[in-house]
This record gives sequence, structure tokens and C-alpha cells, in this order.
Amino acid sequence: MNNNYVSYFRPDIEAMSGYAPGEQPKAGKVIKLNTNESPFPPSPMVRKALDEFNTDLLRLYPNPVSADFRAEVSAMYGYTADNIITGNGSDDLLTILTRCFSDASHPVACFDPSYSLYPTLAELQGAECIKIPLTEDFDIPENVLEQAERANLFFIACPNAPTGNRFAREKLEKICANFKGIVVLDEAYADFAEQNCIDMVRKYANTVVTRTFSKSRSLAGLRFSYAVAHPKLIEGMMKMKDSYNVSMLAQKLALASLRDMEYFNDSVEKIKQNRKLLAEKLAELGFTVLPSETNFLFVIPPVNAADYFNALKKRNIFIRYFAMERTCRYVRITVGTQEEIEALLQATVEILKELSVS
Amino acid sequence: MNNNYVSYFRPDIEAMSGYAPGEQPKAGKVIKLNTNESPFPPSPMVRKALDEFNTDLLRLYPNPVSADFRAEVSAMYGYTADNIITGNGSDDLLTILTRCFSDASHPVACFDPSYSLYPTLAELQGAECIKIPLTEDFDIPENVLEQAERANLFFIACPNAPTGNRFAREKLEKICANFKGIVVLDEAYADFAEQNCIDMVRKYANTVVTRTFSKSRSLAGLRFSYAVAHPKLIEGMMKMKDSYNVSMLAQKLALASLRDMEYFNDSVEKIKQNRKLLAEKLAELGFTVLPSETNFLFVIPPVNAADYFNALKKRNIFIRYFAMERTCRYVRITVGTQEEIEALLQATVEILKELSVS
Repeated sequence: MNNNYVSYFRPDIEAMSGYAPGEQPKAGKVIKLNTNESPFPPSPMVRKALDEFNTDLLRLYPNPVSADFRAEVSAMYGYTADNIITGNGSDDLLTILTRCFSDASHPVACFDPSYSLYPTLAELQGAECIKIPLTEDFDIPENVLEQAERANLFFIACPNAPTGNRFAREKLEKICANFKGIVVLDEAYADFAEQNCIDMVRKYANTVVTRTFSKSRSLAGLRFSYAVAHPKLIEGMMKMKDSYNVSMLAQKLALASLRDMEYFNDSVEKIKQNRKLLAEKLAELGFTVLPSETNFLFVIPPVNAADYFNALKKRNIFIRYFAMERTCRYVRITVGTQEEIEALLQATVEILKELSVS
Repeated sequence: MNNNYVSYFRPDIEAMSGYAPGEQPKAGKVIKLNTNESPFPPSPMVRKALDEFNTDLLRLYPNPVSADFRAEVSAMYGYTADNIITGNGSDDLLTILTRCFSDASHPVACFDPSYSLYPTLAELQGAECIKIPLTEDFDIPENVLEQAERANLFFIACPNAPTGNRFAREKLEKICANFKGIVVLDEAYADFAEQNCIDMVRKYANTVVTRTFSKSRSLAGLRFSYAVAHPKLIEGMMKMKDSYNVSMLAQKLALASLRDMEYFNDSVEKIKQNRKLLAEKLAELGFTVLPSETNFLFVIPPVNAADYFNALKKRNIFIRYFAMERTCRYVRITVGTQEEIEALLQATVEILKELSVS
């Protein structure tokens, strides 16, 4: 290998550290509650679609715009296909949005704390990122519009991650109605929430709602997402996306999953029940548990959060810890199966004893 | 739907027309020789891998860096895994490269005619695209380095598309050795060629070779590609890619395909034979046939090229026509099965009669 390497990268790319996703430990005897995956398998209709799939078709390029999926999903919400774009996971759509609406002179805005990918996307695009601190209880501050004013693109995760709370619709609507650029309502967790904002697209031509099949549809491994927006926004985003950004298998299997509403509703219901159970049990153990409308809990352990995180990791139980100032007292725990919750609780009892003694 | 739409896009995005991929006609009784797909199905090992795949795993995120695939493919060429990055099709890798190495002050260079996506990628990035005209016989001009001098990224398809010829290794090596920025050797068609340049990565720290599973591996619908480069380049590209850009199924099935070298060699051999057959027959019918080291032919019909293209389309035979000055006398025809070639030739005989008479 030639050792005369000099940097060819744009300097900001060279300097940055890149986004750090949650760990993907090698399969084995681990309990994985760190990346908000569903603890349940995807719909059996997904396996059926795989079995019935004519593998020979893979020699052909996929439909470039996921025509079948867009027709069906748009009808579910009273939209039309030209309101929809599909992506290779939400990351793909968020990248497309960043590239369409931000650059060195068009800043990105997002809340802090929120999904840590947003500032990374801005950095990769060479765009300034305006971080707007949430209030003490992780709500939207009064002067949000003033703070976001210079931005052309505003990423809002709702419900928010890693905090788990949902912002009130009225507060979001006020932003959509008054912000001068594009508002992205990232609804990755909306299926676990009491309300969502998918209808706001009808009213606000600057509003994009993104949805993913990685959480509530148990298809993180498949990479599939969609966004809903004004047809003019979709048209422009279509120019930016890779021609064939969504594979043939992703299109087929996502459609099979979409159609199985019964299985979907059942999975979501079970996760909500498990969320309630986990919240109650952790509260009993002395954790401060924030209200969650997602498939995870954001909690303050009665011991040092980093120590608790590391002690669980030693026991092959993976949760998430964010070392930043606003989040360093908390850990984020994905809602797992009842068995996973039991194992977590049992380990937690042990760890609390150990850490209190030492 | 709200009608008060104003444009929010970066002005260059708003103004541009976007990349136009070849048509994907609805399946049915069509002969599709327009997007250089393989006429043969993927390896039977791909179906086997699908059958054996544990669908429940789709609830989890995929390995973010395709660890298994990178280990195996790197060994095939005497590289190591840190020389490899995988992509959601070559488009994904070309987009990553464009974003890493070009911007408003770092132009892109490419040949003309060449893969028409390169100028589009530059445009999407707000980067100037320096188009370097190939010589009369579609070869690299003497003063290429002088012409490319201001660029930081040089996309070279080799063999070239849509012209089908391979540039001499010495000419490419001279560019790799002397160009001051990154040279991307896009080897989408290299499996059909007599030589390739994958070894040049060892010698030149500024050289990236990209490969796709869309052509010779019959997996266009799967979206899978990889690039080979200096570990420092791979490291930087990893920052730019979406965290989970390659799905779990793409990783599994690509690996199954990679391992079936016998089927792969057999498919490539059959395509080369069919290419020879098609070239001979078209020459007999009065076409000028350029030498091809790809899975397509670039040919001048003995009648108006656009008329020929349209007449075939009426008969549900799709080929590709590029209306630009350098290419408007030609059509590009993907090498199909023997049956597809027969049907094309029969239709061609009829069309030549019609067009000569009218």
C-alpha cells in the first residue's frame, strides 16, 4: 500500500469525527436495548413475500420511485402518490433534505438534545447548525422561531429522541405556520405516540413528515422509509435522491408489512404495554422515568448513569448513554420483550446493590 | 393541499432537471435492452440464501460496514477489509465521493461522452463540472491532465459508457500518477473487459476503484456495490455514508453471489459470446459497431438513429438513445439472451426495410 497519503478531503470532512451509531454487537447471548429496534419479528407476511418473490427479477433495476408502495400508503392518509417519496431508511431522506435545503449560507436548525444525526448531517453538508436548547423539561422554548430564524431547514423529531416526549401539536403547528424555511417533522417514533402530525402537510407547503419502517414495523435491517410533503417538495427531492435508492426487496417487503395492519397494531400495543411495565418497575427501583410516547424510556438511574450503563454492558445488556451535559445523568433504554425487561430488571437490582456498596 | 407554495430549494437544485435513468417499462411482453442489466438470473445461491435467511433478524439494524462481505472480497484481491467500503449501488458510492471531494470551489472532471450521472452529481453538489472531450474515436486526449488540472475529483468509467471501449491501462495510470486530486475508476463493466485496474489502488493513494453487482452479478434490483481504495480514503468515506446504507439482505445476498464464482464466470462468458454474435449480425446489417468490452454495444445504424430507436420501441423493444451532439448518430444496445438478440435482429430487418422505403 502506498504510504504517501495526503488528505484530499474537504477540510471540514477531514476534521470531523462522523456520526456514531449505537453498537451492533455480534449476535449471541446479548440483550440489545440500545438502538430502539423492535423486540418482535416483522409481520409473517414479510416472510411470505420473500418466499413468493421471484428471485430472477433481481437482475432488473427496481422501480425508481416505489410506485406501488406510494400508491397504497398515500391512500391510507388521504394523500396521493405525488405527496410521497421513499428512502433507504430515514437517514437517506434526512440526507436528501439536508442537501436540498441547506448549505454554507443556509443553516440547519434542530433542538438540543435531539437526534444527534441532525448536527452531523449539517456538518457533512458544510452548513451551520443552530442548536436550540429545549427547556428544563425538554419542551419547545417560547422564542423558538426567533432562535431558528436564520435557518432554512428545521429538523424536529416528534416524539423526540432521546428524551421520548411528544411536543404539543399546537406548538409544532405554530412553527410550521411561521418558520420561513422547511420544517421536517421526523416521526420515526410516531406509531407509539398518542398523536401525530401527518395531516399538517395538507395545510403547510413547507412541512415534511418522515416515517420509518425500522421501529414499529420491525424492519430496521431492510432499510425503508417514506416522507410526506407538498408535491413540489417531493418533485425536488426526487432530483436529489439516487435513481434507484430503494431496492426491489425493500419495496416488496415494505408493502407486505404495510398491508398487515392487524399484526402492526398488535405489535405496537404490546410495546406500549411493555413500556408501561418497564416504567413502573424502574420507578419502583428509584429511577426517575420521563413520560415516553416512543419505544424507549429516558430515565435517571439512582446511581451514576455511566456506571450503570457500563455495569449492564458487562452483563451483555446494551442500553444507550449520551455523555453530553444535558443528557449525562440519563440512560436510554429500548422497550424489549417481557423476558428482556425481566432480565434487565434483575441485573439492575444487582447493579444497584453493587454500586451502592462500592 | 395548500397552494401557496414558494420555492425553498437551493436555487441550483430548483433550476436543474435531474438525472434521467433509462425507462423501466412495466413488466410484460417487452424486450429490455436499455439499462445494461444482465439477461441472466442471479446465482441460484442467491435464492438459497433467501430461503435460509432468518427473516426475524430484519428487526435489527444491519452491520453498518458490511464486515463479512468486506473481509471476503478484500482477500480475493489481496487487500484487507479497511481497503473496502460497500454501497447501496454504485450511485451511492459516487454520491459519497462527490460529497467528500467536491464543492463550489473544488470542481469535478469527467469525460464527454461518459456516464451522464457524473455531471448531474456535480450539479447536485453545487460543483463545477469540467467536461473533457474524448477524441474522435472516444479515447483519452493527450492533454487530459492539463484539462483536468483545476478539478479535485475525476470520474472515469472504464470501460466507458455509453461508448463501450476500454482505455489503455498506461493512459489511466498516467492520470492516477499525476492528477492532483482523487481519480475514481468506475469499473461497473470491468468484469466484461480484458483488463481492469483494481491493482492500481495499491500503488496510488488517490485512486478509488468502484464495482457494482448490478451488471455482471445480475443483482441490479438488490442495490449493492463496493469501492477499493487507500484505508485513509475509506475512513473518510465512511464518515460521509449513511450509517446503515447497505441493507441486511443486500449484504447476505451479495456474499452468496460473490462466493459462486463458477456461475459468475459462466454468465460473463455467455454475455461475451452473445456480444460477439450481436456485433457480427449487426455489422452484416450495415451497422457500424464499436469494439466493446462491456455488456452492451454502441453502434451506428444505417438509418437515422432516433428513428430506429423509436421503431424498436413501438415493437416493445427498448434500447437507449442519447440525443447529444457526440452521441446522436448512435444507439446503445444491451447484450441480451440469444432469443432477445434474435428478436432484435428480426425487428431490425423489418425496420431497416420500412425506414429505407419511407
